[in-house]
Amino acid sequence: MNATFTSAGQKLSGPSGIQELMEDLGQALSGDPAMRMLGGGNPAAVPAVQAIWRERISEMAANGELDRALGNYDPPGGNPRFRELFADFLRRECGWKVTAKNVVVMPGGQTAFFYLFTLLAGRRKTGAKKILLPIVPEYIGYANQGLDEDAFIAMKPLIDEMEGNVFKYRIDFDRLKITPDIAAICLSCPTNPSGNVVDATDLQRLRSLAEEHGIPLMLDQAYGRPFPGAIYVDWSPVWDEHMIISLSLSKLGLPGTRTSVIVADEKYTLALANMNAVVALANGNLGQQIVSPLLKGDSLIQLSNTVIRPFYEAKSLSASAHLHDCLRGRADYALHASEGAFFLSLWVKNLPIPASELYQRLKKRKVLVVPGHYFFFGLEEDWIHRHQCIRITYSQSDQAVNEGLEIIADEIAQVTAKG
Amino acid sequence: MNATFTSAGQKLSGPSGIQELMEDLGQALSGDPAMRMLGGGNPAAVPAVQAIWRERISEMAANGELDRALGNYDPPGGNPRFRELFADFLRRECGWKVTAKNVVVMPGGQTAFFYLFTLLAGRRKTGAKKILLPIVPEYIGYANQGLDEDAFIAMKPLIDEMEGNVFKYRIDFDRLKITPDIAAICLSCPTNPSGNVVDATDLQRLRSLAEEHGIPLMLDQAYGRPFPGAIYVDWSPVWDEHMIISLSLSKLGLPGTRTSVIVADEKYTLALANMNAVVALANGNLGQQIVSPLLKGDSLIQLSNTVIRPFYEAKSLSASAHLHDCLRGRADYALHASEGAFFLSLWVKNLPIPASELYQRLKKRKVLVVPGHYFFFGLEEDWIHRHQCIRITYSQSDQAVNEGLEIIADEIAQVTAKG
Repeated sequence: MNATFTSAGQKLSGPSGIQELMEDLGQALSGDPAMRMLGGGNPAAVPAVQAIWRERISEMAANGELDRALGNYDPPGGNPRFRELFADFLRRECGWKVTAKNVVVMPGGQTAFFYLFTLLAGRRKTGAKKILLPIVPEYIGYANQGLDEDAFIAMKPLIDEMEGNVFKYRIDFDRLKITPDIAAICLSCPTNPSGNVVDATDLQRLRSLAEEHGIPLMLDQAYGRPFPGAIYVDWSPVWDEHMIISLSLSKLGLPGTRTSVIVADEKYTLALANMNAVVALANGNLGQQIVSPLLKGDSLIQLSNTVIRPFYEAKSLSASAHLHDCLRGRADYALHASEGAFFLSLWVKNLPIPASELYQRLKKRKVLVVPGHYFFFGLEEDWIHRHQCIRITYSQSDQAVNEGLEIIADEIAQVTAKG
Repeated sequence: MNATFTSAGQKLSGPSGIQELMEDLGQALSGDPAMRMLGGGNPAAVPAVQAIWRERISEMAANGELDRALGNYDPPGGNPRFRELFADFLRRECGWKVTAKNVVVMPGGQTAFFYLFTLLAGRRKTGAKKILLPIVPEYIGYANQGLDEDAFIAMKPLIDEMEGNVFKYRIDFDRLKITPDIAAICLSCPTNPSGNVVDATDLQRLRSLAEEHGIPLMLDQAYGRPFPGAIYVDWSPVWDEHMIISLSLSKLGLPGTRTSVIVADEKYTLALANMNAVVALANGNLGQQIVSPLLKGDSLIQLSNTVIRPFYEAKSLSASAHLHDCLRGRADYALHASEGAFFLSLWVKNLPIPASELYQRLKKRKVLVVPGHYFFFGLEEDWIHRHQCIRITYSQSDQAVNEGLEIIADEIAQVTAKG
């Protein structure tokens, strides 16, 4: 049978980094209990958090909320009462000047960005436009989005090296130019994979550039503030009508509900809701319904600050320390400053094999990581650095993380010695 | 701020029939308890069915299934064990020769068709192709899908008129030609909105045409067999590798979980899973987890045959009888033979106002229906018939349905008398 696909279909349905990552993650999770899962972005099973979701579901089953959440279609932009509650929450906790019209519910952050990139990147009457990534490495899941080829143009970062085998990426503002073919600026904060957090000064510079050029600044806060709080430096969430903010319930421990929220000017929230009707009919209701009561007081902020942040921050500190202990003196390496998210970003400076081969070797030794080259997309030229990095997730059990880090260090020491 | 969107973005994010329908449905459901909801495709609240889902959720909360379903990402094509169970179910209950590789989980039937139309309809290296709708009216939710303009080419149906103010659409096989620009044939069965069911002979003719021309035949069985069973005529589900079948959990009473299943040749299931990784990362897990145990025996078939089918069939009979009682002698009309789904398709032959205006008048009188013109897309020329039809949902409470039908008949009698 003739199975040729359209150009857009071919782009979206071919092998991709995110598909390989999710396939690896999901297959290992369902099929290979011995695999050490340091690959995906799966949140940790935090018992105190799981208990809250279980209690909410039981309450919903008892009081009729569950019947309504399972059995009805809500409007394509989300449940109207949830949107009101969420806007109240943002006004109260973040001081943002938003109403329910600035809030739209989406079936996960990934889908929200697919919609946004489809709206903004690609062919239009006045020519094609692209999304500017002011800094890479950036989230692997964006790379194959956008319907046209080359949806992104990315800037190589500056690298600050610090004492103790630590480095930090910084935006190279001197080279950052907003040309007329740029439709939007986009970055994740904390950054997946590096754990980088753009500081207030640099964020303000990006906001000014966006406003000056009449384009939106998209900020993916899936790991950050106001929730789930996996951010370990001072950082205040800001919003204005030039910003498109993405928040997600996934890293609160609810990825299985596929629920995210976009906060933006009404022209974007309206377009997203309309698009969601055509592409998905409606959102899943469970995530919205589970979280609703926690939006009313400050309990979601409390949960983020007193449970989730300390949990991941402790894991970050312990994983970083263990990896330094295992690698120091055995390879020329640096770890990215761990300012947020669930990942260690490891740079092996003279790695004699590409990171993709290191990934394969580690997988054979039952350690799943993500090779760095996936995260450096949109660059105009190849860069040796992208083949020298791997992303290591530390959200899973301490035992799996520690064993995994020891195997990673051992493998790197071996290949570096041979090289 | 400059908010121009790409061409694809404009198509997908503009006002659309499905967006207006879902907006109306959702807003009325959340905001206006007095509205008689005869508009959307919301399944009924069937107490015996709701009890099963509540019990499953409570069981899942107690035994750890819920923690895993909420807290993990499964692979983009669905939970591997669910895919196995589902293939077993289809082999056993339908006799289909399928394995887990022919089964892919999608975030709802709407999204599955968006992916399929994106794969098949539109620009490719060898020129643009379209989806052939062998019969309209067809599901409103397809109309704005496909990334290019004019994704569909539709055939005007034959109309058989029968005694007692009943009619039935039939495929006009004499005029049906599969030209080289046709990428696939698509229909829903039972058809939304008409309640039509393509019979075994006509279905076999479509299968032969698809096979002969090396194109897939897509069949949307959201309301039909093997579940939820809202089909009131003899009809056996069939599958071969030239068919792409869509099944959904929504009309089992679980639309809030956004879960559907596509059964197809592996080249399609693989493409769909890859596309789901890029667009949506993963599926929601709740629907799969809730339904899994019912796939193991014949309990899902039992539920469909002994609870869901009788429930909707009784509603169909009672609603049809009531509308005939209200309209007979007051207007020149016919009702489509009610062979399945949740809808009455009413044709008012000399309606002096367009159906869209009738819809507005009924909405003012607190009755929500869907005007027929939305369902006749892809036709090469306008057709007066499309402005003479409305779709009336009978899945809601008998009181709402009966009151709504009386108001509909009254309004039609009034406008017809004036006309």
